[in-house]
Amino acid sequence: MINFALLGAGRIGTMHAGIIAASSQANLAYVYDTYQPASQELAQKYQAVSVESIEQILADDSIDALLIATSTDTHVELIAKGALAGKAIFCEKPIDLSTDLVRQCWDKIKDCQVPIQIGFNRRFDPTHAGLQQQLSQGEVGKLEQLIITSRDPAMAPAEYLRHSGGIFRDMIIHDFDMFRFITGEEATEIHAVGSILIDPDLAAIGDVDSVMLTLKTASGKLCHINGARRCVYGYDQRIEAFGSAGMLQSNNPRPNSVSKSTADNTDSQSVLNPFFIERYEDAYRAQFDSFVDAVKNNTPTSPSFVDGMKAQIMADAAQQSLISGLLVKIDWSV
Amino acid sequence: MINFALLGAGRIGTMHAGIIAASSQANLAYVYDTYQPASQELAQKYQAVSVESIEQILADDSIDALLIATSTDTHVELIAKGALAGKAIFCEKPIDLSTDLVRQCWDKIKDCQVPIQIGFNRRFDPTHAGLQQQLSQGEVGKLEQLIITSRDPAMAPAEYLRHSGGIFRDMIIHDFDMFRFITGEEATEIHAVGSILIDPDLAAIGDVDSVMLTLKTASGKLCHINGARRCVYGYDQRIEAFGSAGMLQSNNPRPNSVSKSTADNTDSQSVLNPFFIERYEDAYRAQFDSFVDAVKNNTPTSPSFVDGMKAQIMADAAQQSLISGLLVKIDWSV
Amino acid sequence: MINFALLGAGRIGTMHAGIIAASSQANLAYVYDTYQPASQELAQKYQAVSVESIEQILADDSIDALLIATSTDTHVELIAKGALAGKAIFCEKPIDLSTDLVRQCWDKIKDCQVPIQIGFNRRFDPTHAGLQQQLSQGEVGKLEQLIITSRDPAMAPAEYLRHSGGIFRDMIIHDFDMFRFITGEEATEIHAVGSILIDPDLAAIGDVDSVMLTLKTASGKLCHINGARRCVYGYDQRIEAFGSAGMLQSNNPRPNSVSKSTADNTDSQSVLNPFFIERYEDAYRAQFDSFVDAVKNNTPTSPSFVDGMKAQIMADAAQQSLISGLLVKIDWSV
Amino acid sequence: MINFALLGAGRIGTMHAGIIAASSQANLAYVYDTYQPASQELAQKYQAVSVESIEQILADDSIDALLIATSTDTHVELIAKGALAGKAIFCEKPIDLSTDLVRQCWDKIKDCQVPIQIGFNRRFDPTHAGLQQQLSQGEVGKLEQLIITSRDPAMAPAEYLRHSGGIFRDMIIHDFDMFRFITGEEATEIHAVGSILIDPDLAAIGDVDSVMLTLKTASGKLCHINGARRCVYGYDQRIEAFGSAGMLQSNNPRPNSVSKSTADNTDSQSVLNPFFIERYEDAYRAQFDSFVDAVKNNTPTSPSFVDGMKAQIMADAAQQSLISGLLVKIDWSV
Repeated sequence: MINFALLGAGRIGTMHAGIIAASSQANLAYVYDTYQPASQELAQKYQAVSVESIEQILADDSIDALLIATSTDTHVELIAKGALAGKAIFCEKPIDLSTDLVRQCWDKIKDCQVPIQIGFNRRFDPTHAGLQQQLSQGEVGKLEQLIITSRDPAMAPAEYLRHSGGIFRDMIIHDFDMFRFITGEEATEIHAVGSILIDPDLAAIGDVDSVMLTLKTASGKLCHINGARRCVYGYDQRIEAFGSAGMLQSNNPRPNSVSKSTADNTDSQSVLNPFFIERYEDAYRAQFDSFVDAVKNNTPTSPSFVDGMKAQIMADAAQQSLISGLLVKIDWSV
Repeated sequence: MINFALLGAGRIGTMHAGIIAASSQANLAYVYDTYQPASQELAQKYQAVSVESIEQILADDSIDALLIATSTDTHVELIAKGALAGKAIFCEKPIDLSTDLVRQCWDKIKDCQVPIQIGFNRRFDPTHAGLQQQLSQGEVGKLEQLIITSRDPAMAPAEYLRHSGGIFRDMIIHDFDMFRFITGEEATEIHAVGSILIDPDLAAIGDVDSVMLTLKTASGKLCHINGARRCVYGYDQRIEAFGSAGMLQSNNPRPNSVSKSTADNTDSQSVLNPFFIERYEDAYRAQFDSFVDAVKNNTPTSPSFVDGMKAQIMADAAQQSLISGLLVKIDWSV
Repeated sequence: MINFALLGAGRIGTMHAGIIAASSQANLAYVYDTYQPASQELAQKYQAVSVESIEQILADDSIDALLIATSTDTHVELIAKGALAGKAIFCEKPIDLSTDLVRQCWDKIKDCQVPIQIGFNRRFDPTHAGLQQQLSQGEVGKLEQLIITSRDPAMAPAEYLRHSGGIFRDMIIHDFDMFRFITGEEATEIHAVGSILIDPDLAAIGDVDSVMLTLKTASGKLCHINGARRCVYGYDQRIEAFGSAGMLQSNNPRPNSVSKSTADNTDSQSVLNPFFIERYEDAYRAQFDSFVDAVKNNTPTSPSFVDGMKAQIMADAAQQSLISGLLVKIDWSV
Repeated sequence: MINFALLGAGRIGTMHAGIIAASSQANLAYVYDTYQPASQELAQKYQAVSVESIEQILADDSIDALLIATSTDTHVELIAKGALAGKAIFCEKPIDLSTDLVRQCWDKIKDCQVPIQIGFNRRFDPTHAGLQQQLSQGEVGKLEQLIITSRDPAMAPAEYLRHSGGIFRDMIIHDFDMFRFITGEEATEIHAVGSILIDPDLAAIGDVDSVMLTLKTASGKLCHINGARRCVYGYDQRIEAFGSAGMLQSNNPRPNSVSKSTADNTDSQSVLNPFFIERYEDAYRAQFDSFVDAVKNNTPTSPSFVDGMKAQIMADAAQQSLISGLLVKIDWSV
């Protein structure tokens, strides 16, 4: 049994609490949230203890692991404290909106021998992971082109967007991780264009809602990412990998497999899953199991802190390209 | 060049005229119809000669082949006259509503050495024929079960239905031919049930609009046929062949390959083709080419007169089962 | 919390134990199996108590519900004992292979005011249930024809088949329940044909491996069921409902949504789920939740004991038709 | 009847000859090819006259229209001569590899009152055109993002590639036209990346085989084009249009609608059409009919000479971006 303390009792923390509780290999011992009523309610639901200070958790030797689901601006501090206290750490993405802070955090913790995993859940989606596996087994030869479609169902609230770090750091960062996961290479060049086509208010905060990116690797692999903040038919998440011997597509799963034919159209299916909680339900569970395995067996985590940092660097480069209109070359050697 | 006389200038005859005219191997010489204005108009369109008597056609040695698209009750007489006059014959289905008359016709012509082909166009549909070919090549092992779906878009006019011979002889007869074409065997048992679910007026003429049949072959292969006289999403024509090593499905082609996703549903496609002229356009052409090949090369036609007669016998058996509620055993040895 | 005793610690019992343990509304108190090591092991895994006698369970007032997953021939006795002891009962299908024994059981328990639910899990499959719901909401008008495809992945062991009661009572019984669930009517007529196409050894036990059935309701609705004991591409479970205003299809979900295109073929997907445990995983959970709800709220269960009995009666009728070759009329008024 | 002279009796010219001959509104009067045996053979097949000089055609007042299917480097001269001689002109794409020569040609002919149409056949594909029509009818709201997939089945011969003008002018030019056809706007910015992943010999001629482009319009619409010179599963030609109220996809039609399920995979379909002749067979016919209509009714042609010129300008910009690595802004005002 891995003993967990959950930091953050908001929407995503609540989801993680349920996953921890349902696992036969993990136990939810503590819940912490700055808003104590939320912490207490969640702790009660899963027969855990609600605590008022993180120090109490860090000092408790029975706690093996932290699951960090607090607001983004607290991640780096909590990661550092936890790692230095010898706790295994699972932290929701992104590590921080500032790559500088992420690098500083890394400097502090890189010698800690604790498992750290970042919540890029899509690596564990049966469909995306299935594509990655079939590709790596050579089922369609050598990868040449990759197309990632990433469309959120609806605009996030204005307040959220103001602190989101922009579409690349907030949303497309998942797709940067997918790019790295599937190509197994680093992007050497990124080019990004964007438009405000959905929500004119974004202009005031210097953000865009519709983006198209091009990435290239050292070996010449090409990748297109298209993203939008609103998609009326649901959460649209697809990947297409074109190889020397064929093509793999990670298509959208649907809530059920009913199709309908009427006088208007044929073979229509239900709309897609509403959002990530529903679409990636299996992925969240598999992600947690993967972390628990790493903790139990002291094996490398994936995606690691460095994976999280690299996606961040790509988001910065994309932002830079969007603003400058120029192709941005990433020098990973630094 | 095969020189054709077309008998019958109605809807289906007009379609055949266009196919003959477009063929680089055939020439439309004569058109005959009891309604002379139709005959004349069609002849003029394709620079053929409209004639007032069939005898004129039969007596003309330059005529190689008759394409019979007249009303069903004239088929057997025209086939017999044509065959005895040494003309190759393509005749629309069914040969006749009375199997007795079909047998009598066969007695008259069976020694004629002329190619005779019956218009079971579906044998030439790229999709149905593709399934038959893949099946016969063993791609899914040995056939065990067959499911044929056969749904017309809308009720035919009452006047047409009154003289149609009933749903089995008029409509499902195509599916009996498909059964024989795909299984390569004869049905030994037929069971049919039917209901009036669409058009209550059918009760007055002793017909039904919704049917489900079960067929069995001597080797134990099983077949289900489902049919309906009205299908709001278009002309639904599918076949599923289940074999020892897999399954083949002949799915409905669509007018185009656009799919649409909206807030209501995803991946919906257009409705199916409106009816047989559109759905089986390619099949009609391929059927004609096949007949022309048989005439030119003196090779066996398929489907032959006997194929047409056998489908008729199956329709009779189905009708008998519908009325009696009993399983009907067909003795093909007679 | 509903306190459960699990009877039967075999494969399906073990699955149910996991579901009970994961539920936030249920507690697994006891496990019983005639083979005590299995009982003990399973009890230990879920911190329950393994008992050696059912009487101990029946006598314990803290036990609210029995989950019966023992061998079929013990069901009726356990149901009767449990019901008379005032326990809520969830029993795996079938109730018994003998409809007479089922009726006798019903006579004993029909006045007991306890919830009894039979394990026809498919009513809770998101896809089959989705079809049923859309149909009942009139999305494709009034149902006219129903087609149920039911193909197991591979022949069961000979020993199992010998005591299975035959393909209708063992396997197609699920489809009879689906027929009733979806049409909302009773079959008045059943016709069944069958063949041995897969396993010649079945002849010795009077069973078949490939069947096709036709059912009709009083209102004239027609239904085809096709079934086979071996399907190389996985567990094939589909339903097609044809209505006056369209068609609904419950298609096979797949383990993931990856499709592949190569030089051999395009858009191919993975094989289907291996068998019912995988395919109906969500259905088993939803079924359990439904039972717990019925117990908590004292609402009617579905499918009920009578539903189980009716499916049994249909299986008997199908068997009778298979042997006699005749259409069998079911008189539900008795 | 429109009287045609066909210039060019190669592969594509032969296809056009068949289309002209099959049309009920057109007549093939002359065939010209610098290689006289080809010209004579084709003329004979369709009962046309083979001529040795284009002047003879231009001087013949009975000739209404030229169909130019000669080698690309002869197009501008033939267009100019034909237009000045008052002939309607259908010319295969591209107009010329040099945009300067295209502009010079335009200067010569822009005052000629003759219909001129360029062979961007894809505008007439039922599926691409269906998408364009549904989009323009607002079925998915206002267009925001467009994704065009364009993959040829196999590398063209080295000799062909050497004179092709590069992948943008030779192949992607079709997709530039699709972009204009579907967005109804002009690209203001183009960014292109490319790699040699298939054929290393391309390095010697400064070409690439795998490309990814980003385009943006003045209104902010974004477009991705991905292209490759080799696709093992056939000719892959798809379009996805993402709008404010949904998405339309123009999927690949297939030679037939058979799907197959085996122990290896399920629902697999045949490989795609081998290449453009097969895929765009219907489009070529519809394109010709459209030109004939324009000639008969003196209505505007689409795509026009200017459409051809604009696609060329986009190809130049893409080439410039590929070489420079920079985003290229197109100034259409000039």
